[in-house]
Amino acid sequence: MNVYIIGIGLIGGSMSLDIQSTYPEATIYGIDANDAHLEEALQRQLIHEKATLSQVENADIVIVTIPVHVSIGVIKEVLNTINDQTLVIDAGSTKEQICESIGNHPRRRNFLAAHPIAGTEFSGPKAAIKNLFKGKTNIICEVEKTAFTLQEKALELFKNLGMRIRYMDSKSHDKHIAYVSHLSHISSFMLGKTVIEKEKNERDIFDLAGSGFASTVRLAKSSPAMWTPIFEQNKANVIETLQEYITNLEEFKELMLKDNFEGIYKEMESANHIKKILNGIE
Amino acid sequence: MNVYIIGIGLIGGSMSLDIQSTYPEATIYGIDANDAHLEEALQRQLIHEKATLSQVENADIVIVTIPVHVSIGVIKEVLNTINDQTLVIDAGSTKEQICESIGNHPRRRNFLAAHPIAGTEFSGPKAAIKNLFKGKTNIICEVEKTAFTLQEKALELFKNLGMRIRYMDSKSHDKHIAYVSHLSHISSFMLGKTVIEKEKNERDIFDLAGSGFASTVRLAKSSPAMWTPIFEQNKANVIETLQEYITNLEEFKELMLKDNFEGIYKEMESANHIKKILNGIE
Repeated sequence: MNVYIIGIGLIGGSMSLDIQSTYPEATIYGIDANDAHLEEALQRQLIHEKATLSQVENADIVIVTIPVHVSIGVIKEVLNTINDQTLVIDAGSTKEQICESIGNHPRRRNFLAAHPIAGTEFSGPKAAIKNLFKGKTNIICEVEKTAFTLQEKALELFKNLGMRIRYMDSKSHDKHIAYVSHLSHISSFMLGKTVIEKEKNERDIFDLAGSGFASTVRLAKSSPAMWTPIFEQNKANVIETLQEYITNLEEFKELMLKDNFEGIYKEMESANHIKKILNGIE
Repeated sequence: MNVYIIGIGLIGGSMSLDIQSTYPEATIYGIDANDAHLEEALQRQLIHEKATLSQVENADIVIVTIPVHVSIGVIKEVLNTINDQTLVIDAGSTKEQICESIGNHPRRRNFLAAHPIAGTEFSGPKAAIKNLFKGKTNIICEVEKTAFTLQEKALELFKNLGMRIRYMDSKSHDKHIAYVSHLSHISSFMLGKTVIEKEKNERDIFDLAGSGFASTVRLAKSSPAMWTPIFEQNKANVIETLQEYITNLEEFKELMLKDNFEGIYKEMESANHIKKILNGIE
């Protein structure tokens, strides 16, 4: 089995590790715009061989894990090059634009739109780890537009990686993921900014920060190169969630200004329901 | 050694466990407004005996770990009751009001204001764990106002619990802790609220949430009974940090509305500096 992974970072590299252990017969080819990353991926045995886009005509499976603004062009080129039996999986964090852009491509049925919810705040080949996908959710969009035999092939792969599958249309995916992922990143980045700005002249103040702060700003370590195009592609949804978040923060502030601490208590008590919701995620 | 712990929850209960292992000769007495908690603490061997406030006249050490709005009254009562050699340690999350309120108490020199940065999002006796304080920071305020021999006694205790000490005036403590702790809690509570509100009719949407979301809203599980009085006592500082956070979120939103994604990139890139700062916290 020839597997081509385009973008050998956290997601692509981790997939490769799991594919190597579940499909020992597979040859993994790596394609990456960053030569140093490709070389590092080879040395870390994330891939067996380096490759270029034109070679995907020999692919059984192509997995695309690159920033979402470049993936649209790359996936079109891949679809133009592959053979009849090739399965092309996109693993990006936004799904509406990519599904739209290749909706009428003659090879649409070779394509499967997926989003494995399995990131960490790290990136690049050195971030790749085994079993990253075990027990994680994989959202598949517009599954009916993928050829049945290739759906089967993809589901087998995801099963071997230990993922559970949820199906969703691409518009709903982008709307909901803005709430449960994109907004968390903005809240974290801006929390980091607020504290850094205030404390820039008093570096040792961070000695005072505990694990709660670390947990809340963890995502502020994420890659701007990855996240900028995600926010751009999901602009309308992200702005909507961000506005709702700001409104809630403003209301909290107003309650404090009015010394309505009974109201503050109630706000926190109702947010406590997140306990039940989080069961099973952590 | 007679140790009285007032408030047998996460902090008090965890301290008791570590004191029991480092001072095997100590007898730990528990005092708590909640009888069920006190009974639970006894069954979990967090305390050796139940006690009442009037008994602290026999105490070598009294540790007060109760919500900050009740601690002011309780600490005054404790100071009125203790003997000359008793050390009274407050472990609450705000320090300015408590230090001010007992500033002129005849027993001021028996009192030490501390803040062990060692919470989790859990509370109550069942949340108590061993070694909670190992490697954590303990902020001591106005140390010069505590009798020298009692300072020594406290430092030995904190050393045995594995804590590192930072000294700070109470006003600075409350100002900085608003940034590195209180704001994180509000950001988390309101993030939880925003997502719950949006997704209340679509419970299975949380299937889509990954570890990043879980990390960012973890603190939204915290106890409203503990946090309401903290926000009330630290109102001015918290409102200031909250306003700065809202302003940063508004600016981020404006950049998005203007399609200034180069600006968005830069915002995230500069928040990335949190990486270096977090080293050693997690």
